Amino acid sequence: MPIRRLAPETRLTGATIHGNIVYLAGQVADDTTLDAEGQMKDILAQIDALLAEAGTDKRHLLTAQIFIQDFADLAGMNRAWDAWIDPAHLPARATVQARLVDPAWRIEVTGIAAIP
Amino acid sequence: MPIRRLAPETRLTGATIHGNIVYLAGQVADDTTLDAEGQMKDILAQIDALLAEAGTDKRHLLTAQIFIQDFADLAGMNRAWDAWIDPAHLPARATVQARLVDPAWRIEVTGIAAIP
Amino acid sequence: MPIRRLAPETRLTGATIHGNIVYLAGQVADDTTLDAEGQMKDILAQIDALLAEAGTDKRHLLTAQIFIQDFADLAGMNRAWDAWIDPAHLPARATVQARLVDPAWRIEVTGIAAIP
Repeated sequence: MPIRRLAPETRLTGATIHGNIVYLAGQVADDTTLDAEGQMKDILAQIDALLAEAGTDKRHLLTAQIFIQDFADLAGMNRAWDAWIDPAHLPARATVQARLVDPAWRIEVTGIAAIP
Repeated sequence: MPIRRLAPETRLTGATIHGNIVYLAGQVADDTTLDAEGQMKDILAQIDALLAEAGTDKRHLLTAQIFIQDFADLAGMNRAWDAWIDPAHLPARATVQARLVDPAWRIEVTGIAAIP
Repeated sequence: MPIRRLAPETRLTGATIHGNIVYLAGQVADDTTLDAEGQMKDILAQIDALLAEAGTDKRHLLTAQIFIQDFADLAGMNRAWDAWIDPAHLPARATVQARLVDPAWRIEVTGIAAIP
């Protein structure tokens, strides 16, 4: 079964696809001048784009892991999440605080999705 | 292949099932007055219940990720783990320290399990 | 579908295999006197060995999660990663800072790989 790769960078790829499963790399905001809610919207739009390229969408997200630099940003992150997620098709999720590679990143999100 | 969801909440679901795989959301103790060992027992009982509802059990846990607020609680967490786990059917595991959303939570556990 | 286990320890196993997927436990350096680059080389050699035992290799790594005790070690970790990874077969990846169980561990790496 071949592995398909989306959005390759120099040392990692944005997503790998194996069978009917998509594995997302840690997604961070392109525009790091945004606040947490803005960065989360930016991240979720990137996830939408990767999932679309893989032939799926957010309703097929199986699990998401959210790393947040500072829990002071939790409410803003969740506002963007709540506006994005389909309440009839919720994923599993875990959220913890951790320092991220670039201090300007407020949030990093990984996940695993199914392809219908 | 449809996705089944267990224990839905407002912004995430307790577990998703896709094919013969179960993805667990970050599980935390219901009773946060307990010490680390007690909270871990509480979490592992919740995992048992989710796995049972999915048609599987702890012997089919493939991997677990444990986030612990304070490594001072590591020994207590491991006592509960060691009492729970079947030594003939061990999962992969990773444990790191990270701040959790609610300071009263000592531990949060995610994982992936197979359905036999 | 049976679960195969590699490198069992007392409370976890180094990797589980289910179908054509390998789930790696958090891998840490055996020689903790090494610097971050040396520890990462040590870890990646252990991953190579586990993947070989599972009948696969690094070109089939789907996703990797890297926990690093101190971002001061990021460049050294990445030097070892860049020397190891096959640029034509990159995995998804996420890297965050987190305290690890043993303060002498600089890095811990988990991941999921496919078996061709």
